[in-house]
Formats: sequence, structure tokens, C-alpha cells
Amino acid sequence: MKNSPAARNALYAQSGGVSAVINASACGVIEAARKAHRRIGKIYAGRDGIIGALTEDLIDVSRESAATIRALRHTPSGAFGSARFKLKGIEQNRTEYERLIEVFRAHDIGYFFYNGGNDSMDTALKISQIGSAMNYPIICVGVPKTVDNDLPHTDCCPGFGSVAKYIAVSTLEAAMDVQSMARTSTKVFVLEVMGRHAGWIAAAAGLAGRKAGEAPHIILFPEVPFEQTKFLERVKQCVTDYGHCVVVVSEGAKYPDGRFLAEAGTMDAFGHTQLGGVGPVVANMVREAHGYKFHWAVADYLQRAARHVASKVDVEQAYACSKAAVEYALKGMNAVMPGIQRRSSKPYRWELVPVPLADVANVEKRVPRGFITEDGFGITAACRRYLEPLVAGEDYPPYRDGLPSYIRIKGTSVRRKLKTEFKL
Amino acid sequence: MKNSPAARNALYAQSGGVSAVINASACGVIEAARKAHRRIGKIYAGRDGIIGALTEDLIDVSRESAATIRALRHTPSGAFGSARFKLKGIEQNRTEYERLIEVFRAHDIGYFFYNGGNDSMDTALKISQIGSAMNYPIICVGVPKTVDNDLPHTDCCPGFGSVAKYIAVSTLEAAMDVQSMARTSTKVFVLEVMGRHAGWIAAAAGLAGRKAGEAPHIILFPEVPFEQTKFLERVKQCVTDYGHCVVVVSEGAKYPDGRFLAEAGTMDAFGHTQLGGVGPVVANMVREAHGYKFHWAVADYLQRAARHVASKVDVEQAYACSKAAVEYALKGMNAVMPGIQRRSSKPYRWELVPVPLADVANVEKRVPRGFITEDGFGITAACRRYLEPLVAGEDYPPYRDGLPSYIRIKGTSVRRKLKTEFKL
Repeated sequence: MKNSPAARNALYAQSGGVSAVINASACGVIEAARKAHRRIGKIYAGRDGIIGALTEDLIDVSRESAATIRALRHTPSGAFGSARFKLKGIEQNRTEYERLIEVFRAHDIGYFFYNGGNDSMDTALKISQIGSAMNYPIICVGVPKTVDNDLPHTDCCPGFGSVAKYIAVSTLEAAMDVQSMARTSTKVFVLEVMGRHAGWIAAAAGLAGRKAGEAPHIILFPEVPFEQTKFLERVKQCVTDYGHCVVVVSEGAKYPDGRFLAEAGTMDAFGHTQLGGVGPVVANMVREAHGYKFHWAVADYLQRAARHVASKVDVEQAYACSKAAVEYALKGMNAVMPGIQRRSSKPYRWELVPVPLADVANVEKRVPRGFITEDGFGITAACRRYLEPLVAGEDYPPYRDGLPSYIRIKGTSVRRKLKTEFKL
Repeated sequence: MKNSPAARNALYAQSGGVSAVINASACGVIEAARKAHRRIGKIYAGRDGIIGALTEDLIDVSRESAATIRALRHTPSGAFGSARFKLKGIEQNRTEYERLIEVFRAHDIGYFFYNGGNDSMDTALKISQIGSAMNYPIICVGVPKTVDNDLPHTDCCPGFGSVAKYIAVSTLEAAMDVQSMARTSTKVFVLEVMGRHAGWIAAAAGLAGRKAGEAPHIILFPEVPFEQTKFLERVKQCVTDYGHCVVVVSEGAKYPDGRFLAEAGTMDAFGHTQLGGVGPVVANMVREAHGYKFHWAVADYLQRAARHVASKVDVEQAYACSKAAVEYALKGMNAVMPGIQRRSSKPYRWELVPVPLADVANVEKRVPRGFITEDGFGITAACRRYLEPLVAGEDYPPYRDGLPSYIRIKGTSVRRKLKTEFKL
């Protein structure tokens, strides 16, 4: 595989909260880029995402075997390291952007693939702009990733389908558990799920119940202001009617005045404010009002890392978006991201189209009101039609000795070329 | 399938906390009993376990199709209903036992299969004793079930292998997530797991790490008194050495004076004691001492209901124990339970032997000191050898529209024969 002299190198970086399929995205970018070796020379990855790019701490992806890259497809988390690091606006901190271009120039990076959510799409856009401004030719293509499913101009986001499947399956299983023991044990079960600003993950729990009376009985969305009295009445009604009540609450659930329920101010024994989850807050609210025996669960990282129960559609979309991103780059399309367009729900048909990063950056897509039942506590048939194809199919990792065989990369460093250090 | 006139009926009941495989046990009992139709007539199940037996609220299992019974093998929770209801000693409450015999007599129950843990084995034993005392011939056989793995005289308990697999897989996945972002995000992750008295489930998390430095870095067992200073030092050392620290804490973790960590007395904003989990308590302890960014998860019922990632060995053992229980009953063996005897670990070989209920009842098997590393924070090679076969193999449920196809029984009631009501 000799690179053509015209080939330029590529940099891939992971950004923000990782997911069950962000490494499937990495796999897609790398496999597509390797096939394009006449146009793309070396493939590098930022160690810990954009931080690796800023500090010239690059991973030489060519040192990883084809088998390792293939295994990334079934490995959760961010194999190259990801970062919560938002570049400031160009006006406030031009030096960060200039530094990036300096590193790109030193390593002849002609293609930058940034795998992340809203913020990252904004960063990728700015890098492409500063590249032009500095007369450095660079093609920046976004690779969508967010478990929150809040990117606009795409039907859904790689990472979401798998967390949605995990939450739907877990809600179904835990609800059956609670129901089977409710006569003498737990009456109210609360599951806290992720989604600080958008209730997509909470909505996915709704897939667990198909008929009236089936759990989850109450979903608390960030999109619907929380009314305590109405909520507590509904809990009581469920326990009366069904013998138990399963509540799924989004971490972003808020009071009408905008305060998060999670901020409700619990204190430890020393009077310090306790940073707790909204799950126990809601469960205690029920206990104080009704005295029911309760349990609560907080899935936290377990939900977004759960590659063992990933959605097959999600894995396929993650891979396909990456492949498309490389194709766009090779066509010279700059500052775009592949967006998923749904052609039909049953059977599920979709295709990829390029979306300008300028349209995506910093815009959040929330759960529309038409996807939430009138009472604010459940999902509508339209929401179910939207969600069902996204959790379809299983894509199990291989196992060894009872545990998934997830891969770890070697992560060999690229020799530094710059004399200057960059302080974060 | 005509029953012989000599056949007597069987009653099956589920007891205590349900699991991913207690319905696989039900499947085993029912399928074996159906095959023995010359000896076993009708098969009934207690609705909500022993409560159904006391109140003469029985489910007619013959109304369930063979396909439904087969599907129980892959369905979590207690399909017939389970109960947390411990019968008092015969001296304190002889009427409860006499009532059971009265119900058994009314429905010609000759075989009682009780599917539960320590308490249930004690109850089954007492029922067989009171049967003799009252001149009512009844064969009582225990069917072991407990996610806590704390029954003696059996190498392990059906239900444990699957929760162990879930916790090992979840720890592995969440730890990879944390590691990939530790540079700019969460440094300390705490996962709370079940096990009020025995640390078997916590120990299973140890399977996630094979090499030095791999998560979980710290396991807090109920068997090891919690030393806060030593714990906090170790957390700091891990963050220094590995950039992050993954802690798995058993809900039963205790201070040297015997107080549960979970009782550490957190209060809500109104000064009420908050019934919280030990996970957030430990996470806050770390925050106050070191200020690290942290996250915590409480898997709660998700762990014991997680049939989607059940251990194949566990499902097989659950089924095999039930089959053996029916065989014992047909041989006229009374007041016994099938115990699993390990013949070898690699390859894993096991067989079933009858264990007298008198030896099992009310005895708890805790994690032996030799399974816990000297520092008290990890598992030894011997523990790994013990645990690994129990999580081996996958046994996925069938899926439909992205979710597992779990079965619900019809649950047709048996016509009541007694005039008397029983108040619980």
C-alpha cells in the first residue's frame, strides 16, 4: 500500500461523551481512508481528541492491525480517547485555532474528521474557516455522534439507537421484576436516564410498554415542566389500578421555573449540598407523599457504554456515516456532515445526505410535543413509529470466558515535529 | 395425557427476590412434571408465591401452552408472582402451616416445589414436618434460587451466574468509558451492586479486570470492614497511577462498628433522613476528600432482571436443578434440594446431588477470605477460577421489533374449594 505523492494525511478525533458505537464510527473512517490510499496518506488520531491535536500528541493509526480496526466496530468507549474540551470562539482565543493549523501543517494533515455532537460540529466548522483564512487547505468533515440524539438535520444520531435499546430493554426487564413482586414488595420503581436537555432517551423507555397499563407508567421529560401534584396523583392512580408504578425520569427534568429536579437541594449529614441524581429525589418525593415502598436505579454510564446490547441499525448507521464522511472529503466537500434521511419507517429505509456544518452547529433538536402524550407522561404512536426502527436488530460482540472481547489499541505515538509546547 | 388415578397434584411457588432465571426454573419443574403425568396429576402454581397457597389463590398451569412454558426459559422476573413473606416459626404461628396443609388437602397436592433462597428452604422444611405431624403425606423439595449466591452446600445458586455476568460486563463497559475520557472528565466512577450480606455480586465485578491497573480498582465487600482513610488513599493512588479510579461497592458494605455505609445519614432539604444508596455516599466521600469529578451508578433491579445478558451456564443449571427436583420428588425423597457440586473448573464440570433442607435452611455462605486479596480491595486468582465458569456462555432471548420477546402467562385461576378465607 504505497501512498501516492499527491496523498495528504488524515486526522481523526473523538469528542465529548463516548458511546457504544463511536468506535464503530472510528472503524468506518479508518477502513474507508485505508482503501483510499492513493488520496489519503497516513491516518492519525488525536490522543484524547482535540487535546491531542493541540498538544501534537498524535496516535499513528497505521501501526494498528486490520483486525484491531475491525474489532473497534464491536468495542464501546473511545479507543483513541475523547475529551470534554470546547474551543472558545475565534475572537476570544484565536491562538488555539492557529495552533491547530500549525500542527496540521507540520504533519501535512489535509483531512480532518471530527466525531462528535453539536459543539464539535461548531469546532470543525471554525477550523475549516480558519484554514481558509490562514491559507492552509484543509477539508473538515463532521462525523455525527451523540447519545442525546439532539443534532438537527439528521433523522437520528449514531449512539442514540443503542442507548435507546438499552433503556427500553432495561425498563421492560426491571418493570417485569417489580410487577411480579409488587403485592408484598416494591410498589414504585424509578429509573433515572441521561438527557440533560432533550428527552429522547427517556422517550425510548416508552418502547417497553405496548398496551395500556404496561410500564413505564410515567415518563418525566425535560420538555414538559414538572408538576408535582399531578405527578403524585398519577403515581397513586397507577398503584391503585396496576398494583405498582414504574417511573422513568430524565436527568434534565425541570420545575416550571426552570430549576432541575436534581438540584432540589439534598444535603448530607454535615449540611453540605449533595450532588445527587434526580432518581432518588423523585423516589423520595413519592415516599413522603404516599409512603409506598420504593426502589430506584441510576444507569449513568452503563447506558451509553452498553455495547453488549447495541442496536444493529445504530452500528450500521455509525459505520455508514463514517464511510460517507470519507467519500465527501475525497470529493472535496468541506464543512459538511453526513445526515441520515428517513425514507420510510415500515420497512425502515434511510439514506445519507451531506448537511452543511453551519446548519448543525450549536442547534439542539428536542422531542417535539407531538411525540409526547397530551398528559405529558408518555409517548405517542408517532414517537413509537420514529423510535422502533432505531433499536431494531442485535449486533452482539464476540465473547471470551464469559465477557465481551473488546479491543484496546496499541496507540503508538507519532514523532513530534514542532519545537513549541502548547499549554491547555 | 390422561392422569393415572394414583397421580397426585403438584404445587410450584416462587419466593423472594426474583431473578433472570427463576422462570427457567419454573420451566424445568413444569416440563419435568408434565412428562411424569402417570405420577403427577395437575400442576398448580401459587399466585404471588406462598401467599397464593395460603389464600387458596392458585394458578392452573395446565391452561398454559407448551410454547408458553418453553418461553419461560428465556423470560426474567417471576411469571407466577413472587412474595417477600416469611412464615413465622411453627411455635409462633401454627395456623399458617395448618392452613397450608388444609389447602393442599383440598387440592390433593402431593408434591410441593418451593423455588427460593435460605428462608424458603426453611419454610419448605417446616411444611414437610407439619405434613407428617398432621398425617398429611406431602413431599417438599426445594429448588434453589438466589442472586446473592449465599446458599450453603451448593457450589453456586441459579440466578447468581446471570447477575454476575451482568455486573462484570457493565463494569468492563463503564470502566472503558471512564478511562477514555478521564483526562478532561470523570476521574472516579462508583458502581453500587446488590448483596446485603454477602459480597458475591461485588466479587463478580472483579472479572472485568485481568491485568494490573485494569478496573475495577477497588471493590468494597460486606465481608471486609470499611476503613475510610485507607480507601481514600487508594482512590488517590489509582487516579495518580492510572488517571482514573473505578470503585464497585456492595450495598452491604459496613463500617468496622457494623453500621452500613448506606445508613451514613444523608438528609434532604427538609432535614428528613434520606434513604439513599451507598453508591452516592461513597462518591460524595471521594469528592469531599479529593474534589475529583465523579459519577455513580446504581444498577438496582436492572442487574437481577437482566435476562438479555444471562449466563448460559446459569440458565442450564436453573433448568437442571428443577428437573432434578422433580426426579427427587418422584423417588419419594422429601425435604431435600438439588445442590450443585463442582467436579472441575477448567473444563467446567458439575453434577447435582440431593442436599437435606435442614442443612441449607437459614445458613448464609459468604465470600471466603481466601477469595479476597490481602488489601481487601480485590479478588484473588482462586476467586476468579471459581467465578469464571459461572458467567460462561450466552443464552440470548429471541427479539421482536428490537425488544426481547418475553412471555406473560394467562394465569387462569383454579376454582376455590374451601369455604374459609385466610387473612394475611
